[in-house]
Amino acid sequence: MNHAQRISDLRSDLEHPLLVTSLPNIRYLTGFTGSNAYLLVGHDGEAVFVTDGRYGEVATRLVSTLDDVELVVYSGAVRNVLADVLRPFGRVGLEASHVSWDFVREVRNSGVAELVPTSGLVEGRRMVKDVDEVEALRAAAAAGDAAFSDLESLAATAATERELGWALVDHMRRGGAEQAGWEPIVAVGPHAARPHHRAGTGDVRPGLLLLDYGCVVDGYHSDMTRTVWRGGQVDTEMERVYQAVLEANLAGIAAATPGATGHDVDAACREVLRSYGLEVHFIHSTGHGVGLEIHEDPRAAKESDHVLEPGNVITVEPGVYLEGRGGVRIEDMVLITDDGNEVLTTSPKEWMAA
Amino acid sequence: MNHAQRISDLRSDLEHPLLVTSLPNIRYLTGFTGSNAYLLVGHDGEAVFVTDGRYGEVATRLVSTLDDVELVVYSGAVRNVLADVLRPFGRVGLEASHVSWDFVREVRNSGVAELVPTSGLVEGRRMVKDVDEVEALRAAAAAGDAAFSDLESLAATAATERELGWALVDHMRRGGAEQAGWEPIVAVGPHAARPHHRAGTGDVRPGLLLLDYGCVVDGYHSDMTRTVWRGGQVDTEMERVYQAVLEANLAGIAAATPGATGHDVDAACREVLRSYGLEVHFIHSTGHGVGLEIHEDPRAAKESDHVLEPGNVITVEPGVYLEGRGGVRIEDMVLITDDGNEVLTTSPKEWMAA
Repeated sequence: MNHAQRISDLRSDLEHPLLVTSLPNIRYLTGFTGSNAYLLVGHDGEAVFVTDGRYGEVATRLVSTLDDVELVVYSGAVRNVLADVLRPFGRVGLEASHVSWDFVREVRNSGVAELVPTSGLVEGRRMVKDVDEVEALRAAAAAGDAAFSDLESLAATAATERELGWALVDHMRRGGAEQAGWEPIVAVGPHAARPHHRAGTGDVRPGLLLLDYGCVVDGYHSDMTRTVWRGGQVDTEMERVYQAVLEANLAGIAAATPGATGHDVDAACREVLRSYGLEVHFIHSTGHGVGLEIHEDPRAAKESDHVLEPGNVITVEPGVYLEGRGGVRIEDMVLITDDGNEVLTTSPKEWMAA
Repeated sequence: MNHAQRISDLRSDLEHPLLVTSLPNIRYLTGFTGSNAYLLVGHDGEAVFVTDGRYGEVATRLVSTLDDVELVVYSGAVRNVLADVLRPFGRVGLEASHVSWDFVREVRNSGVAELVPTSGLVEGRRMVKDVDEVEALRAAAAAGDAAFSDLESLAATAATERELGWALVDHMRRGGAEQAGWEPIVAVGPHAARPHHRAGTGDVRPGLLLLDYGCVVDGYHSDMTRTVWRGGQVDTEMERVYQAVLEANLAGIAAATPGATGHDVDAACREVLRSYGLEVHFIHSTGHGVGLEIHEDPRAAKESDHVLEPGNVITVEPGVYLEGRGGVRIEDMVLITDDGNEVLTTSPKEWMAA
């Protein structure tokens, strides 16, 4: 992970200086993991890193590893500091989907610089993961897989959905995760009909169980969903739904190859579910990029014309939801490779729990 | 927590319809806890709640408890849906510090509505906590206190800062927390010189230990920092720093009463540290509001002219940081009451660990 190189690569794309305000973008470019920073990348080789006193020591160390980055550590209101930083540049690009309207109005009113909206300059580079990034993603996925392999022993000690969620998080932590990516979705029985059910006090009991969880290793996320039937009177309709969703998941993965678009992957899943008469119950899009953010580009959705290339990592997560009854989603993380793809999440996809 | 009333109260402040886009604001107004929603509050009594298919079932239930709120569940791109929602209103306020520049440009280009920047309309109401909110904040603070009371037994089983952080989180979870508010700051020895040190692989050993952690109960955060000396050769300079910071913390709390400003609280802390010649090492502001967000209004800072009133909850967290050597911060959550205040975090503030 050569941050100086990443800044230099970004610079080669710039028509004018860019003020980076998205924290994941700043982390990607510099390694900074704190909660407040700005990075101005000039197109003539200069750069300025701005943060507050809480991060002064860390930022000093970090900037010393980068080329030609000036450090500004402020206290009080950031706006005066930023005005001074922007003024010499005259014309500055902003990340238009990250800066607030307020921010733009304030800088405009200060008259220090002409502002130009930009889109996806850093995100575009982040879509192609390098070797170190893939290693972190693989480690995060492995921690999730390890937790799933112990599902029955974890479920045996968890009375509620929330407790099972915590048990998954604990397991991933022991497996090297820094943190859970989010509160795990643990949905028992009819709760699985809500794609983003919040784990609550529902009993962990035999029958349908949907788990959607992940963790973070070195800042990189994993994301996986499994649905299993854990004993009890078999629900043959749900079993048929499971077969359809599994087939859709596999079709989506098969479609996720270099040269295909995000739309193609989405369409492959939809086509299978349509053939089962279930597409109407697939009420979200097929997938999203995963990296420093749990949802990032590229998308696997109807509207996505992004052409997949080696190094992209996307989820493929078709789902079918039957209100009041339950739902099935199967989600994998897929790394696009030179000659196809590699599925990073390797947990089994069996309808009946082991 | 009467959400219908909250929407109605907000409406009484509005000059024109307001599109609420901040998720904590939407949660405050409706109870929605998902990750994607928009709430348009008309000034004539109407309102529209917009979310995507993942939350359709939850949103249907939620909207049924509110007065006159129309539900729109979309799939695909939100922009077309929002255009239809905004069009009938003609002139719509946006939360200027939450909407992105992109969002504003897109809506403007669509020509569906004239946009007006607004600031703090919902946040202003959120500053005054009601009985239910105070109860949740109190429960979150209590879970943090309970973890601190077991510090020595937790530290005994934790080899590293990160493991101690996890032990604190586990303890708070058992004490009723839904989740940790953030990765705990656990800083041993010189690491405590970084106000926002990231818990890492540093040994948990005798000497200086700074802990800054919190959790979430019913969506409401707690936030507390304690610094303790855990045995070994006493560092008399750090002990003097501790006394100064403790005195500053107590002075800040004493100043946090109805009618005082956020500036006054900050000044009370600074004055104490100045008298010790340590103010130069107090490199952040004194505190912030706590509620559905870990950092919210009102602020306790030099620039804060907010006049404190009963129901405000702020942190008072002076700190002194000596690079390469260590640091001390002591932070409490303070509820402003009719006749003064109540400190919600009740953990002891002793220099020597019990």
